Amino acid sequence: MPSETKPYQAIAAEKKAQQWNKIPKDWRIPTELFHNATNVMDIPLGCGLLNETESKITSDYDATALLEQIQTGVWSVEQVTVAFCKRAAIAQQLTNCLTEIFFDDAIERAKKLDREYDPKSRGKALPPLFGLPISLKDSFQVRGYGTSTGLACYVDQPAEDNSALAAMLLDLGAVLYCKTNLPQSIMTGDPHNNVFGRTLNPRNKLLTAGGSTGGEGALLALRGSILGAGTDIGGSIRVPSVCNGIYGFRPSVGLVPHGGVRDLTPPGTDGVRSTAGPMATSLRDCSLFLKSILQADTWRYDSTAISVPWMDLQPRHKLRIGVALNDGVYTPTPPVRRVLKQAVDLLRGNSSIQIIPVNLPDVKMHYQDLVGYLALSGSDHYYEQFARTGEPVIPSLEASGLLSVPGTTLHGFFDLNVRRAEAAKTYLALFRDNDLDAILMPPAPHTAVPLDSWRTITYTGLWNYLDYPAVVIPVDRVRDTDAADDLSNAQFGADDEQLYSLYTGQEQYKDAPVCIQVVGYRHKDEALMKTAAVLDAIINKL
Amino acid sequence: MPSETKPYQAIAAEKKAQQWNKIPKDWRIPTELFHNATNVMDIPLGCGLLNETESKITSDYDATALLEQIQTGVWSVEQVTVAFCKRAAIAQQLTNCLTEIFFDDAIERAKKLDREYDPKSRGKALPPLFGLPISLKDSFQVRGYGTSTGLACYVDQPAEDNSALAAMLLDLGAVLYCKTNLPQSIMTGDPHNNVFGRTLNPRNKLLTAGGSTGGEGALLALRGSILGAGTDIGGSIRVPSVCNGIYGFRPSVGLVPHGGVRDLTPPGTDGVRSTAGPMATSLRDCSLFLKSILQADTWRYDSTAISVPWMDLQPRHKLRIGVALNDGVYTPTPPVRRVLKQAVDLLRGNSSIQIIPVNLPDVKMHYQDLVGYLALSGSDHYYEQFARTGEPVIPSLEASGLLSVPGTTLHGFFDLNVRRAEAAKTYLALFRDNDLDAILMPPAPHTAVPLDSWRTITYTGLWNYLDYPAVVIPVDRVRDTDAADDLSNAQFGADDEQLYSLYTGQEQYKDAPVCIQVVGYRHKDEALMKTAAVLDAIINKL
Repeated sequence: MPSETKPYQAIAAEKKAQQWNKIPKDWRIPTELFHNATNVMDIPLGCGLLNETESKITSDYDATALLEQIQTGVWSVEQVTVAFCKRAAIAQQLTNCLTEIFFDDAIERAKKLDREYDPKSRGKALPPLFGLPISLKDSFQVRGYGTSTGLACYVDQPAEDNSALAAMLLDLGAVLYCKTNLPQSIMTGDPHNNVFGRTLNPRNKLLTAGGSTGGEGALLALRGSILGAGTDIGGSIRVPSVCNGIYGFRPSVGLVPHGGVRDLTPPGTDGVRSTAGPMATSLRDCSLFLKSILQADTWRYDSTAISVPWMDLQPRHKLRIGVALNDGVYTPTPPVRRVLKQAVDLLRGNSSIQIIPVNLPDVKMHYQDLVGYLALSGSDHYYEQFARTGEPVIPSLEASGLLSVPGTTLHGFFDLNVRRAEAAKTYLALFRDNDLDAILMPPAPHTAVPLDSWRTITYTGLWNYLDYPAVVIPVDRVRDTDAADDLSNAQFGADDEQLYSLYTGQEQYKDAPVCIQVVGYRHKDEALMKTAAVLDAIINKL
Repeated sequence: MPSETKPYQAIAAEKKAQQWNKIPKDWRIPTELFHNATNVMDIPLGCGLLNETESKITSDYDATALLEQIQTGVWSVEQVTVAFCKRAAIAQQLTNCLTEIFFDDAIERAKKLDREYDPKSRGKALPPLFGLPISLKDSFQVRGYGTSTGLACYVDQPAEDNSALAAMLLDLGAVLYCKTNLPQSIMTGDPHNNVFGRTLNPRNKLLTAGGSTGGEGALLALRGSILGAGTDIGGSIRVPSVCNGIYGFRPSVGLVPHGGVRDLTPPGTDGVRSTAGPMATSLRDCSLFLKSILQADTWRYDSTAISVPWMDLQPRHKLRIGVALNDGVYTPTPPVRRVLKQAVDLLRGNSSIQIIPVNLPDVKMHYQDLVGYLALSGSDHYYEQFARTGEPVIPSLEASGLLSVPGTTLHGFFDLNVRRAEAAKTYLALFRDNDLDAILMPPAPHTAVPLDSWRTITYTGLWNYLDYPAVVIPVDRVRDTDAADDLSNAQFGADDEQLYSLYTGQEQYKDAPVCIQVVGYRHKDEALMKTAAVLDAIINKL
């Protein structure tokens, strides 16, 4: 640690104190209300802090419906903003899901928007996301606020500019009001770091809230937000969506601007790229997000964007859905198997769907190569950043093994590219030759797991490796009937058995959401959204 | 050279003999007709080989107009195919522009298409490129034919599959009939190799036909083809378009399928990618090509494709055209300056155009980095391929210096990426902040130059570095009035002076075409085509 730098403990203590002061005194709730609860989902409405209007605004709508309420003048932007700031403050106290808090600025902006677009003054046409509060993962820069990503060495460095996505959302009329927690390194399934600490899963504090965009996941589950933006390079939007029972969409790389996002790999790293995408309480909100962004000239905001237009496609009459029961590496645990079967049964019973069983080729090999891409430069750059303030490696990062991947050479990188190009041909053939609209599969072999035990991202990472869009849809939660079964059900060897043994039955996994994943072809993100909407409506009986 | 391998001389002699036998005896023309001519442009119609119909078919239309003639039954596919095969055979004898010749197969396919779509049998709807002969650069694979790219070590290895683009063109109804010559390494401005020899410029044999897609350039200039496909990683479509006075369009990477193209860099190389695009005798034919491809689900053919749809955009009422008089590295020679000024004067006089003078920042630095990308792995892989048959390095490759670039490491590659990401921001700002529809500039500081003296691709390569679409439009030729002027006009130092001194006046450069280049923003290829069409109409008074 350089002598002029404060140790991480001091930096974290100051930052946490600063953060606590951003929560107005009368928005603080007594800790005895929730400290002993494993599930805190009922606290926001039960704690008495939200008045009836605020309860209604934050509980009764998805973003699409709320936007309509705002645009038709049912609620003012200020009312909506205050309500979500309050509920986010509650969520923060319950789960430690926030990093940067800027409720004051948000409420100021809300008032300004109310004035500027006052219907009485026959004002301007409303922008598409007018007045909608949107939360962001900490790695998105918001001018004037930190982008520490939970690393002590980056605390107290206010951003000079907005990330491309933050700038777009503001131009589209949204209200930004907070940023959310993530793991040290942004690379694990536990949103935990040495500055902000750990975000808890509001449905079951003994299970992880998921990573990396875990703060967002917990905040959305508690409805401290109804639309958030995360990033995903191996599952970082989808894993917390699974853990928290929300919708999470990983778009194809470049469609949603990712410029100005802090990630911790060495500058110029290429290969598998992180992508920005929405997390929400409904699938149509993911579509709303994607449509609003794609219609708004992403190229103007981000030199790395791929400007694919929104086409207002219609799904075809009979959808062809490939179903992969597993990824050939890890066997889904009983609740995951049950819910997938339940979903497939409902689809089979619907005349607009044709089910095609598919196998996913060579996932284990592709996963190893994904890890190779994620650790192209080895781990020195991580250790260097941690060392600046003497901060230790968090347990989930240590356990992930990522820090012991040795890195590679330019030719090692080319070799990864060669193998991936072959994989891309194989998976193109899978989609094309089966004439698939999408693949339905589990988003993980398990639900949220106990703290620091999320080890694998084969189910999500395959689609980062291939750059296919994928969305997580919540379907159910672990039930009494989901008994743990014999380890011999784990079909794929010792590693599989070990992971399978994590599931011990309903008691430990109480209230854990169970989700499905729907995957589309690269750059056909809009088509995937349309297909997934059909499936969601059937499976969730909407 | 491995002992079991034949030396390149023997391989080349066999291949050339095989090639000569593919030209029917009665399609051969007496060498005394043309051997002493510097300009052979009049020979195809003057040599007496083409009958009146064949002369008309190959002379009077662009691809768009010819397609209409075919589709309305004015000419059969067979008539059109035979005419172009014959004229290509003449072009081959005049300039040595072809590599693989498959006239027989083409004529068979033509007959089959005529039968299959016989209007009398009220046949199927015609595919969009029905019956149109299309020529391909040698590096595209066509099943059953070689893809040697002029390297002796790859001769006599028939392709097992079509390149994605060849497959698409066939599915779209086109007739493939020949492939065209290119430089050893596919990386120089002279289409010259140890297997097929050198392609000559039909307008002036003392000047280069341009590279790398030079065979295509010469073939199109002689109308042995009216629509061809090339590839461009630094200017390989645009340089031969300049040299031969044709239209040449370099699309954004991925829009036109590039899968299955042989290039000679080590597998898995990334950074700056080659792109496939059309070369033609009209701008609307470049649009026809792009539109036909984009409308035909490129993703089904190529796992590397970016499927951006064709939108039938309209150019806006008043176009804003940035004009860059030079690239800040090399001063355009007198004919190039004259033609650009002439073009800008015509645009200034048009009420639908607004001219905005622009400077192109840091081109020299970006060019150095482009070279860094093109030589990531150094040159061992080239030498290794040459050594297999003992073939020597061609003069233009030796002189290019590419073989002495040392290659880099993974972190050197990342550093290139970092600098390019900054450049991308700068050039985005140039387009966005000036609200530009396109940039008009020279495609090179000079016209076609004497053999083996094309040294620089700063004017074209900048747009490969940034992945912006760019099109070359022929405007004029070198005139008597284009006197060489004083070297002091070279503004950018010693290298510039040396290049500037290449231009010695009209005598040496007789009949050399002079062109302009129009550049659009990344992935806005259709918009560029629409803008360029407006400019072409004004500048060429169409």
